[in-house]
Amino acid sequence: MVRVKAVLAYDGTRYAGFQRQSGVATVQGELESALKAVAQETIAIAGAGRTDAGVHATGQVASFSSAWSRPWEELQRALNATLPEDIAVTSLASAPDDFQARTSAVSREYTYSIYTEPVRSPMLRLYAHHHHGELDAERMADAAQLLVGQHNFSAFGRSPSGGSTLRSVRRVEFRRDGSLLRIVIEADAFLRRMARRIIAALIPVGEGKAGPADVEEILDAGDPSRIKGTAPAAGLCLTHVAYPAPSEA
Amino acid sequence: MVRVKAVLAYDGTRYAGFQRQSGVATVQGELESALKAVAQETIAIAGAGRTDAGVHATGQVASFSSAWSRPWEELQRALNATLPEDIAVTSLASAPDDFQARTSAVSREYTYSIYTEPVRSPMLRLYAHHHHGELDAERMADAAQLLVGQHNFSAFGRSPSGGSTLRSVRRVEFRRDGSLLRIVIEADAFLRRMARRIIAALIPVGEGKAGPADVEEILDAGDPSRIKGTAPAAGLCLTHVAYPAPSEA
Repeated sequence: MVRVKAVLAYDGTRYAGFQRQSGVATVQGELESALKAVAQETIAIAGAGRTDAGVHATGQVASFSSAWSRPWEELQRALNATLPEDIAVTSLASAPDDFQARTSAVSREYTYSIYTEPVRSPMLRLYAHHHHGELDAERMADAAQLLVGQHNFSAFGRSPSGGSTLRSVRRVEFRRDGSLLRIVIEADAFLRRMARRIIAALIPVGEGKAGPADVEEILDAGDPSRIKGTAPAAGLCLTHVAYPAPSEA
Repeated sequence: MVRVKAVLAYDGTRYAGFQRQSGVATVQGELESALKAVAQETIAIAGAGRTDAGVHATGQVASFSSAWSRPWEELQRALNATLPEDIAVTSLASAPDDFQARTSAVSREYTYSIYTEPVRSPMLRLYAHHHHGELDAERMADAAQLLVGQHNFSAFGRSPSGGSTLRSVRRVEFRRDGSLLRIVIEADAFLRRMARRIIAALIPVGEGKAGPADVEEILDAGDPSRIKGTAPAAGLCLTHVAYPAPSEA
């Protein structure tokens, strides 16, 4: 058996999330079905990030073990021919024996897309959040810098394992991409809904209804009730997962 | 009754085209239903371009007459609140009494989007055509220039009315937009499927399987069998319709 690392892109619109659940369509379920069909193996795969229902990915990473003996390009091509159109394997290669997509990862990067045009866009609706009214991106970026570093993010989400809510945010970057505002958040790991709760906390700052000090207070007080809701799933995309360089692995 | 000009954007994926047909979802049908719900009027609208099933629009223009007496912004907002998420009215205003979206138009602009990455993209699949293998855009652009001007485009499509197949292509422009190649075609009017048949004729040129001379021969011979098929609908978008300046109208 050889250890395999696969990078996945998917449109999360019609999935109940990455992680397998009985009775609903999931990305993990589709990938495991495709592996069974292509390689005649019943393989349990693991994903680097548990993306929620409706959340997209261009850089999700999955790991599994396989007895595949032909070139990896063939397995990748066969999987892409078998998977539904809204999931694709963008790269596939052998990995060190101890490679685990989730536990080997050193950081995850999520990108949230927002647009503020006066009229909602039929062509952006599946991959970006339409915010009514202008947003001051510079003000949001200033507030976002207060989140960088190691903090207790208990106001922003729960630990999937019920464990520590301490997380390290490496960077929060704001980019203009045509009519879209892209907010890139990199952290060692994310609490459940943390990326979308960060966006929900920053939006009032962009609207001028709150200031950077409010974001700092939310972080310090650890009070989840001070963030209104969760930004919509359609705007969120898991864009990258980082691993130690091969020499350090 | 006041004459109204509305600009429409839509994701054509789930529609059988712009034009109303009984028993299937169409953009015209949705717009007429919304107008009936909002303005209590049974209004027949006309569209500038008959986009085919699956073809998108960001600049479709529709005209109709209405007894609406409140501000136009209110009608636009009410329509956008009533229309399905994949259709939006991006602007709406009164127009000269004799304004007809179709017959008043002086030109239409369609944009075709292609990407050539080795792996198909789940996030681009609804709005761009995935071409397997590289395309030489410069070679395609050279061939496309041979189509500019007034020609008999009988090899590229049929007249919807069974009339003349003479059309004037104003320009064909090639643009890079990230990983997408955008081909913008402007003409006074288009024959049925003409934009997608032009793309189907240019692709072999980009692949190196045909040369600009072949495109010229297809045009001169008027032989539809020399173009293989029609480029997929998902890549096509009606991006602009031009009208005479108000002073000339």
